[in-house]
Amino acid sequence: MAISFELIKTDPETGARLGRLTTPHGVVDTPVFMPVGTQATVKTMTPEEVYDLGGRIILSNTYHLYLRPGHELIREAGGLHRFMHWDGPILTDSGGFQVFSLAALRKISDEGVMFQSHIDGSKHLFTPEKVADIEGVIGSDIAMVFDECAPYPCSYEDAVKAHERTVHWATRTRDHLAQIGSDQAFFGIVQGSVVRELREASARALVELDFPGYGIGGLSVGEPKPLMYDALDWTVPLLPPEKPRYLMGVGSPDCVLEAVARGVDMFDCVLPTRMARHGAVFTTTGRLNLRNAKNALDFGPLDPGCGCYTCRHFSRAYMHHMFKTGEILGLRLATIHNLRFLLDLTERIREALAENRFAFLKTQYMEAYLTGG
Amino acid sequence: MAISFELIKTDPETGARLGRLTTPHGVVDTPVFMPVGTQATVKTMTPEEVYDLGGRIILSNTYHLYLRPGHELIREAGGLHRFMHWDGPILTDSGGFQVFSLAALRKISDEGVMFQSHIDGSKHLFTPEKVADIEGVIGSDIAMVFDECAPYPCSYEDAVKAHERTVHWATRTRDHLAQIGSDQAFFGIVQGSVVRELREASARALVELDFPGYGIGGLSVGEPKPLMYDALDWTVPLLPPEKPRYLMGVGSPDCVLEAVARGVDMFDCVLPTRMARHGAVFTTTGRLNLRNAKNALDFGPLDPGCGCYTCRHFSRAYMHHMFKTGEILGLRLATIHNLRFLLDLTERIREALAENRFAFLKTQYMEAYLTGG
Repeated sequence: MAISFELIKTDPETGARLGRLTTPHGVVDTPVFMPVGTQATVKTMTPEEVYDLGGRIILSNTYHLYLRPGHELIREAGGLHRFMHWDGPILTDSGGFQVFSLAALRKISDEGVMFQSHIDGSKHLFTPEKVADIEGVIGSDIAMVFDECAPYPCSYEDAVKAHERTVHWATRTRDHLAQIGSDQAFFGIVQGSVVRELREASARALVELDFPGYGIGGLSVGEPKPLMYDALDWTVPLLPPEKPRYLMGVGSPDCVLEAVARGVDMFDCVLPTRMARHGAVFTTTGRLNLRNAKNALDFGPLDPGCGCYTCRHFSRAYMHHMFKTGEILGLRLATIHNLRFLLDLTERIREALAENRFAFLKTQYMEAYLTGG
Repeated sequence: MAISFELIKTDPETGARLGRLTTPHGVVDTPVFMPVGTQATVKTMTPEEVYDLGGRIILSNTYHLYLRPGHELIREAGGLHRFMHWDGPILTDSGGFQVFSLAALRKISDEGVMFQSHIDGSKHLFTPEKVADIEGVIGSDIAMVFDECAPYPCSYEDAVKAHERTVHWATRTRDHLAQIGSDQAFFGIVQGSVVRELREASARALVELDFPGYGIGGLSVGEPKPLMYDALDWTVPLLPPEKPRYLMGVGSPDCVLEAVARGVDMFDCVLPTRMARHGAVFTTTGRLNLRNAKNALDFGPLDPGCGCYTCRHFSRAYMHHMFKTGEILGLRLATIHNLRFLLDLTERIREALAENRFAFLKTQYMEAYLTGG
C-alpha cells in the first residue's frame, strides 16, 4: 500500500477532522496546506526553507513538468524528488486543470485531449493512461487522475460532460494502474460544477472505484464562496470517512477554515506565493499591499502576531522599499511570510482539533480576518 | 579611531598583503571581497546567507540609497545596518561613479554635481559635504569621498580635470568632517585614468590628506586589463603600507589575483551577482552559461570542486531548467555559487599568504581559470 490514512479524531461540533497521512516519503499531519511547486520549485524558496516554514508535502504539476523539463529528463535525474532536492512527500496534479486553462488550443474527446503547448505551440495528446505513466515517472507520492475541469460558469450540459468524462477517465486510470502493476497512490477527482445532483453522482461513481483518497475539483474557479461551500456540503458526506479529502486550489485563510469545518483534510493554492510576488501579504486582520505608500514610513513588522523570519527582522518600510526597487529579496521575504501564515493557520487548526476547540478558533479567527480587527 | 588596519604580512615574492581591518561592526580579514548590496540588499540574498557564504563586509551605494528610500528614512529606521538587518561592517560608495554613469543629465562644477535622477528625473545637487553628510546618516563603517570618475577612454584634459576635482573634493570632505567632528572613516579615491603622471599626482595628493584608507577608482571601466594592472603598478607603491587599499569595482577571479599580487587588500564587484542573474556562473575552469543547451542533460554540479549549497544539492540540468522557466530560485542558487566562488578564492588567497605560497596558488589558479583546465 503506497499511502495510508489514519483518522485520529472527528470534531463532533463541526465535522472537522484530525488525521495522519503516511506516504513513501514521510508522514503528514492533516489538515494540511501544501505549498505549490509547479515547475519543480516552490517559487523563490529552497526546499530546506519550505520545510523550515512547516511545509511537509508539496504539490507539483504534470502538465508543466511534462512540457519543461520533460518527464524523460526527470526519469534520467532519478525522479522529481532527487531532481528538485526535496525528499518529503510530493503530490502531482494531473494537469487536467492546466490543459483547460493554459493550453493554446485543445480538442477534447472521450479518448483524451489533444492540446498545443502554451510555451511553443507544439502538439501533444494527453490520455488518462499517458498522464498516469508520466506521474509514475515523476514518482509522486500522491498522483491525481486526469480529469476534465469545467469552467465557472458553464452550461448544465458542459457540467454533465465534464463529470462523465472524469468518471470515465478515472475508470481507465484505475484499470491501467492494475494492468501495469503500479502501487502509486492515485486520487480520484470529484467534478460536477456547482450542481448538486452532478456532485453527488460524481462522488458516488468515484467512491465505487475505490481510490485511496479523493480530490474535490472544479471549485475555486471563480464561483462565489457560498456556492463552493454548498458544493462541499453536497460532496463530502458521500466520501468514505477513512480516506483523505483534498480540496484542490484552495486557498485563502477563510476558505481553509470553512472547508476544514466541512471535513476537508488537504489544501493547495498558489495564492500565498503569487500574492507575495505581487507585494501583498496576509495579516491576521486581512491583506496588506506593501506597495501602498502608507507603508513607506512604517517601521513595524508585517504582522505583529507573526513569528516568521521576515516579521522578526524586517519592517514594512523595508519591504515597501524592496517592492519599489523591484528587489528579489522582497519577493522571498513576502513568500516566507505568506507561506508561514497558512502553515501556521493549519498548525493552529490541528492544535485546536486536538484540544476540542476548533469551532471557537474558527469564529475568533474569521472575525479578525474578515473585519480587519 | 573609527577603523584600524593591521598589516600582518607582506609576501616578499609578490608584494601581496595579509591584513586585518577592524571596524565598528566587526573585524575583516584581508584580502577581502565585499558583496555588493546597492539598494540595501545583496541581490536575492538574506543577510544571514551572505554571512554564511563567508561575506564579512558588504558594500552599499550613496547615490541609490539617497534616491530610494532616501537617507532621511534610513535615519528614522536607525541607520542602514538596522534597516537592512545586516550587523556586520558596511562600506558605502559615494555615488560619484553612479552620478556619472546613471544620472540622466548632470552639470559638473567645482562646487559639485547637479544631476537628474535616473528614476524620476528629479533634480539634485551632490557636493562633497552633502555626500559626506548622507554617508554619516547611513552610518557606514567605511565611507568613500565624493569623486569624479573619468570614463574610458577620455581625453588627457578630462583625466586631469577629474583628478584635480577629486583631490579638491577630498580636501573639502576632510575639512568638513573635521568641522562637524565626525570620526567616520572616509577613504580617499585615487583617480588619474590610465595616465602614469596623473595616477602618481593623485596618489601623492591624497596621501598628503592622510585618509585612513585609499580607494583606487576609475579602473574596471572598460580599459584593457593590462592597462589596469599598469595603473596599479604606478599607484600602489605610493600608498602608505600601513593603510588598506581598495580596488573599486573589481572583480573577476583573475583580476583579483593580479591585484592582490600588486598589494591590493579590498575588492567589490557586481559581477558575481549580476552574472548569476543572467544565468552565468564561475567555475575553476572558466565561465559557464547555464542557458546553454548542453547543460540540459548534465546531472553533474556547477563545479565539481565547489562545496557551496548549490553544488552540493542541484545539478546543471536543474539549473538549466530554472533559467529556461525563469524561476527565481535559479537566480538565488547561481548567486550563492558565484558569491561563494569569490569568497572562497579570497579565503584561499589568505591561507596561501599565511603559508607563504601565494605566488604558486596564483600561477596554478590562473592557468586552470584562463585555459579552461
